[in-house]
Amino acid sequence: MEAARAKIGLVGLGVMGENLALNIERHGFPIAVYNREPEKVDHLLATRAKGLRFFGAHSPAELARLLERPRKIILLVKAGQPVDWTIEQIRPHLEPGDIIVDGGNSWYEDTERRQKELAASGIRFVGSGVSGGEEGALWGPSLMPGGERDAYEEIRPVWEAIAAKVDDGPCVTYIGPGGSGHFVKMVHNGIEYGDMQLIAEAYDILHRGLGFSADRLAEVFARWNEGVLSSFLIEITAKIFRAKDAETGAPLVDLILDKAGQKGTGLWTSKVALDLGVAIPTIDAAIMARLLSGRKNERIEAARVLEGPKAGGFQGDEAEIVAAVHDALYAAKICSYTQGMALLRAASDTFRWDLPLGEIAGIWRGGCIIRAELLGGIREAYSKRADLPSLLLDDRFREAMARSQPGFRKAVAFAQGLGIPCLAFSSSLAYYDSHRSARLPQNLTQAQRDYFGAHTYERVDKPELGAVHTDWPSLVG
Amino acid sequence: MEAARAKIGLVGLGVMGENLALNIERHGFPIAVYNREPEKVDHLLATRAKGLRFFGAHSPAELARLLERPRKIILLVKAGQPVDWTIEQIRPHLEPGDIIVDGGNSWYEDTERRQKELAASGIRFVGSGVSGGEEGALWGPSLMPGGERDAYEEIRPVWEAIAAKVDDGPCVTYIGPGGSGHFVKMVHNGIEYGDMQLIAEAYDILHRGLGFSADRLAEVFARWNEGVLSSFLIEITAKIFRAKDAETGAPLVDLILDKAGQKGTGLWTSKVALDLGVAIPTIDAAIMARLLSGRKNERIEAARVLEGPKAGGFQGDEAEIVAAVHDALYAAKICSYTQGMALLRAASDTFRWDLPLGEIAGIWRGGCIIRAELLGGIREAYSKRADLPSLLLDDRFREAMARSQPGFRKAVAFAQGLGIPCLAFSSSLAYYDSHRSARLPQNLTQAQRDYFGAHTYERVDKPELGAVHTDWPSLVG
Repeated sequence: MEAARAKIGLVGLGVMGENLALNIERHGFPIAVYNREPEKVDHLLATRAKGLRFFGAHSPAELARLLERPRKIILLVKAGQPVDWTIEQIRPHLEPGDIIVDGGNSWYEDTERRQKELAASGIRFVGSGVSGGEEGALWGPSLMPGGERDAYEEIRPVWEAIAAKVDDGPCVTYIGPGGSGHFVKMVHNGIEYGDMQLIAEAYDILHRGLGFSADRLAEVFARWNEGVLSSFLIEITAKIFRAKDAETGAPLVDLILDKAGQKGTGLWTSKVALDLGVAIPTIDAAIMARLLSGRKNERIEAARVLEGPKAGGFQGDEAEIVAAVHDALYAAKICSYTQGMALLRAASDTFRWDLPLGEIAGIWRGGCIIRAELLGGIREAYSKRADLPSLLLDDRFREAMARSQPGFRKAVAFAQGLGIPCLAFSSSLAYYDSHRSARLPQNLTQAQRDYFGAHTYERVDKPELGAVHTDWPSLVG
Repeated sequence: MEAARAKIGLVGLGVMGENLALNIERHGFPIAVYNREPEKVDHLLATRAKGLRFFGAHSPAELARLLERPRKIILLVKAGQPVDWTIEQIRPHLEPGDIIVDGGNSWYEDTERRQKELAASGIRFVGSGVSGGEEGALWGPSLMPGGERDAYEEIRPVWEAIAAKVDDGPCVTYIGPGGSGHFVKMVHNGIEYGDMQLIAEAYDILHRGLGFSADRLAEVFARWNEGVLSSFLIEITAKIFRAKDAETGAPLVDLILDKAGQKGTGLWTSKVALDLGVAIPTIDAAIMARLLSGRKNERIEAARVLEGPKAGGFQGDEAEIVAAVHDALYAAKICSYTQGMALLRAASDTFRWDLPLGEIAGIWRGGCIIRAELLGGIREAYSKRADLPSLLLDDRFREAMARSQPGFRKAVAFAQGLGIPCLAFSSSLAYYDSHRSARLPQNLTQAQRDYFGAHTYERVDKPELGAVHTDWPSLVG
């Protein structure tokens, strides 16, 4: 019997898995790797892992033999059934106390089911969000581990070592029990969708509305990256606008088909928000914009016949519009994060997860796709007031909205006047204005529901009456 | 053994059940009724059903004995578990060939499960949408039956007799197999949510934006009900604005609390649309607006501190704004129905239901909550082109949008400029403008996804390459 020499194991040698394994080894943890196709194991050991403290396993049994106890095995396989199949394969070779860590984008309820199933054999299961794409996996991701705390404590030295680092520490914290780690990762991805859609709309307004070329757009986004919008996504957007097609020298972005794909997590965020009764219109807009983008043929047919505003060259002050779009992007981003945090708050309350909202914003400051200047402020907002009901009520963000809202309105009006769709911008603005409305027109909605369905309503002047019903037709004919 | 004397049975004597039973009897069908609380049965027979061809059953066995064969039993119980419990109760007393009709707002997948379960005992199951509220149930609802066609044929004489009538016949048609009847009813309700929210926003703009009193609003809506907006909901809205509080004489609508409740069907519509990949932003906005309305305390706190546009009395031409809001309401309504029909189309394709879209619009012209002038045009649009990919492409609606879109934009800009939220209006406008955009900015989204996640993209100039990946950092640093 081979002596256990690896501190940790990893199953699933896609790019994310390979990179995460290399990251782990680089931080001083000898690692055993296994993949369903043994060639992948051999290939990795002969190439990128050559000379490193890697141990290749050709079977789940061998993987188990190579690991010190309690065994810690990270799964980086496709979310869904592949996770169950992998667990089924390795489970017979594990002992009570061993730990499986699912680093994929699993649905949080699946994570909770797996935790229960494995607990029956004494095996511990951690569902950990891993964000940062391929680069993050290799050089430092943001990590969102959830599950039993004692199980997390066992992998904590590894997780803290490999995570991205910001000024005050690694981008990892214990999220909470159950599937909370994967839930938080899902919401992270929903926020990421929102950020990307807001950037796309800003681009559309400057490109279609002002006629800005890719070069000018690169300048604008690079400048924006120096200020309050500073973030990974704004940074790469500036870079993307600079990329040229090798053959023609044309901006590469202009040659890319405008049909955006999506994986499950953004869509899940929208569905969970409905279940939890939280309005996340900016994130929803992002999902829908991708869906609408996919119907390219329908759009081409519609574009030929559907009328819009009469086109006319832009006459006003360009710089003023650019400033307005900047403010719109910042304000809408604040609204979007407000929604995301409200969703986390609702989940925390509903599932009794006691999520550390400030720390979650904190670990998103590095490593992950949504890393941004803004997150430092969100972290502070919750450290000042842990039960903050809405991010918009924090002084910093309240003031930022006060400063940005005139430009926000101007940019939206500019786009709509030109017939440029801005679903995420306008939804964010409506979210803000709904929030600001002590009184909304749903009194009429309640009257209608009571009129045709006897659903009853409450009175503002006589709350003590509770639910009352009016026989409307008898009152007004 | 008592001789079977009733043509049809009904279980569940809530207001809807009672009214539907009275409607059925009035059309010449002796009816047996059963309720879990026998007092309800006795009460009905002693009051509203007195002297009518009603038979009261005090047990499921008695109900079964009272019915001619094959038995036809309508359930009007609360959606969810109560439907299963009721089926469990009556099933032992049924025989192969008997038919159960679920007239509640059941989730369509539950309907399909029940169909399968009952088919094992040879019992047939029809899931039928019933719309029209209490009044509709009593005087003529819109009916949306789905399931096995031969089972529907057995209840068809009753269904056609009791349905609302429009000029060319009863508001009922066979919808399709499986749970399609309940699915179509769910989408009907989603559209209803959209209509109600659009009306609420129109009200908010006229009330908060122009300072219109309830009396003036009643005039405006009554006038609108004479034109293209003519519909049940606009009609009752005008009436609601006329209703006064008996005690103070104040408009009743002003005294109603602005927190709108919701039942499941609207929310289900949003979730199903995500599953089927169909963007229905207007309907989603309606759901979210109700959620936001529910957070009254948070809104009151936010209203005190969040800044909006500087208030200033309205200076322009009132009539122009009223006309713009009219056009916005009409245009947004067209967008909303376009989304609803697109959702039905997607469901029809995905589940192979072969839904008769034109006929569905046709049976919504009477009896139901969304009955409206507009539906005649939708019916015609599909009779001219059954595979119409989008309602917006039909000549009538294309032209209506062309006429309405300037006012639509003006109303939205007016509201946003004043800080009045208009989530459904602005989402509808963005839907229209997305539709009209042969090119959307999702080329940038695809570039970003490829940059950080190697998700690949396609090229417009070289579609033959298929999915390509760029190593962006190596290209631009």
